[in-house]
Amino acid sequence: MRIMVLGGDGFCGWPSSLHLSAVGHEVVIVDSLVRREIDDELGVLSLTPIAELPTRLTTWLERTGRRIGFEQVDVANEYDRLVALLDDVRPDAVVHFAEQRAAPYSMKSPAHKRYTMNNNVNATHNLLAAVTQLGLDTHIVHLGTMGVYGYESVPVDLPEGYLTVSYPDRNGDVRHREILYPTQPGSIYHLTKSLDQLLFQFYAANDDVRITDLHQGIVWGTQTAETAVDPLLINRFDYDGDYGTVLNRFLVEAAAGLPLTVHGTGGQTRAFININDTVRCVQLAVESGDEVRGRVRVMNQITETHQVAALADIVAGLTGAQVSQLWNPRREAEVNDLSARNDRFLDLGLDPILLQSNLLVAEIEMARDYAHRVDPAKVPAESYWNRDRAAVPEEVLE
Amino acid sequence: MRIMVLGGDGFCGWPSSLHLSAVGHEVVIVDSLVRREIDDELGVLSLTPIAELPTRLTTWLERTGRRIGFEQVDVANEYDRLVALLDDVRPDAVVHFAEQRAAPYSMKSPAHKRYTMNNNVNATHNLLAAVTQLGLDTHIVHLGTMGVYGYESVPVDLPEGYLTVSYPDRNGDVRHREILYPTQPGSIYHLTKSLDQLLFQFYAANDDVRITDLHQGIVWGTQTAETAVDPLLINRFDYDGDYGTVLNRFLVEAAAGLPLTVHGTGGQTRAFININDTVRCVQLAVESGDEVRGRVRVMNQITETHQVAALADIVAGLTGAQVSQLWNPRREAEVNDLSARNDRFLDLGLDPILLQSNLLVAEIEMARDYAHRVDPAKVPAESYWNRDRAAVPEEVLE
Repeated sequence: MRIMVLGGDGFCGWPSSLHLSAVGHEVVIVDSLVRREIDDELGVLSLTPIAELPTRLTTWLERTGRRIGFEQVDVANEYDRLVALLDDVRPDAVVHFAEQRAAPYSMKSPAHKRYTMNNNVNATHNLLAAVTQLGLDTHIVHLGTMGVYGYESVPVDLPEGYLTVSYPDRNGDVRHREILYPTQPGSIYHLTKSLDQLLFQFYAANDDVRITDLHQGIVWGTQTAETAVDPLLINRFDYDGDYGTVLNRFLVEAAAGLPLTVHGTGGQTRAFININDTVRCVQLAVESGDEVRGRVRVMNQITETHQVAALADIVAGLTGAQVSQLWNPRREAEVNDLSARNDRFLDLGLDPILLQSNLLVAEIEMARDYAHRVDPAKVPAESYWNRDRAAVPEEVLE
Repeated sequence: MRIMVLGGDGFCGWPSSLHLSAVGHEVVIVDSLVRREIDDELGVLSLTPIAELPTRLTTWLERTGRRIGFEQVDVANEYDRLVALLDDVRPDAVVHFAEQRAAPYSMKSPAHKRYTMNNNVNATHNLLAAVTQLGLDTHIVHLGTMGVYGYESVPVDLPEGYLTVSYPDRNGDVRHREILYPTQPGSIYHLTKSLDQLLFQFYAANDDVRITDLHQGIVWGTQTAETAVDPLLINRFDYDGDYGTVLNRFLVEAAAGLPLTVHGTGGQTRAFININDTVRCVQLAVESGDEVRGRVRVMNQITETHQVAALADIVAGLTGAQVSQLWNPRREAEVNDLSARNDRFLDLGLDPILLQSNLLVAEIEMARDYAHRVDPAKVPAESYWNRDRAAVPEEVLE
């Protein structure tokens, strides 16, 4: 298949592009490279030394004989170039990672809120408008987030996108209706993914665009079979307070001899997935595109759920690190339950890699290899969700 | 109260600004004046000859002694100016009309879709981010649309924003939850108002912003007590295929001796409100802002519902005009039921002006007064909802 990967230079986009190429698809990466600019803005480096994208692509070609194309296009702001490229490539599928993906970054300041909103909404909408304008039958596979469901405890195992609800009609009789699961996003970033859901619903209904929305959990891990082929293919590993997801942050803290920083009680339950499963899920989603007609297909791209404190205990147990509780900068439930269905990917053949595996030990070793690159000042989360949260209580500061 | 009216030069914004000023509030209009540029783009004029905004404001001051301020700011694109202005005025309420408001215009082309999406989302988000950044307790009153509920027949009287639904929990026990009524927008314009709902939900929950969202029906009528004070205060009256709402278009067609154009079967049921009730509702919403804390307050700003064919018959009966059925450019249900609650405004004291009133006759007379300004070529709807709709069947063209 011919596959265009928007945001193919990023943490999930890069290993997904390699994996799709490795299994024989024709891949074109479209990326503005803005994520590298954000590293500069934040004054932080990936723990792993990542090569420039042209070097990555040359290396991949040399090592595997497989060519991945690249076009530097800002999908949110260069509509005409996007249209021309889609018209030229006419992809069977577009995998859409081209959104600002860090919740703390999206809450850092009014400018960061506005950037995230503008970038993410326009990137998604431009893609939909372009595919519609060209009359392409391209299948769009979008990286969404489990966060659209919200992180309040709910009494159901989260379904995959839709919920059948009942309510009385005007005569008092009970009626049933299947609806998009009511969204409760907890940050501007998560909000943009909730908005994406409505954009998809509209374009699927009005223009018959074929769309799969992947509600992904928190990704852990770094390397995949393909990124490990050569050091110049290494994937990025973010450990900073904005882009570092919780488990990767713990691993770096342990490797650098720092305490593991748990924000709040650690009672927050989240869904997780290993990066190797991410790339396999993307492949499965793309290759099953023929089944997508009519309403948007939503799949929960997760393999397990854990409480944050339990994660810290696992890493502490493997490394001997201390655990340190910090003020929670987020406005969120301090404790929540979470369980979710992932039948769709299991049915498509996903064989999950769970946390209790050798991969976690390998991650710890890799973090130790690069521990000299850690800037401890960049680890703490410094984006506050609102005015009240920014007023850290004195007893926490002491 | 000090009230800022974003989009205060428009069809609803202008009479609302005058009305709020007339009843004693201190009003500042913020407007980019883009709506007048769109008249130029479409090559169409308001049926009524509207004065430039500075002339309108001078006239209002001369005739009533009341001063309305004006700042030309593009809310979607000039964030720093918006922040500075809000910081300077520190309004008790902001009435937010600053969005592209025509469904057909929003579907005209990819460029119009993208403009509507970008403009409306960023206008609303900039306002929310600015109020949050400044820590203002300002009450935001937003003009939404009944279209967020969708126009499929549903078995309930549409509630005001929220619906209590039931579903089984993981043990099979029935649980209840109040949710935002599931949205089914039928155009990019309506979609942006659905997105607005989620922006409001988030900022109310995360930053305690006080918000009222008015789900307005289709507005008919032109003049209000205040716009009628002087010919230089006259309100705009759009009859073109993009901005002319259905009843106003019928009135102009009758006045110009043209057949009344019904798109599709005319079985579409819609909710309506007279412009005089619009301005009173805005006043009632603003003045009851103290009750808005916590979740977003949603009020249906409508007074009655009618089928489009029935509206045509009413106008035909009063004027002797013919009725002509045309191809429907919209992808929508050709026939639907619609009934909706409007208890909130009735409770606040609204005494509805219904269609069967002398006001409709006055509107017909006004349309006749200005019939010489009608350009019949601009009346037909020429924005198609999608590729299939643009392929008008041959039997319709004959």
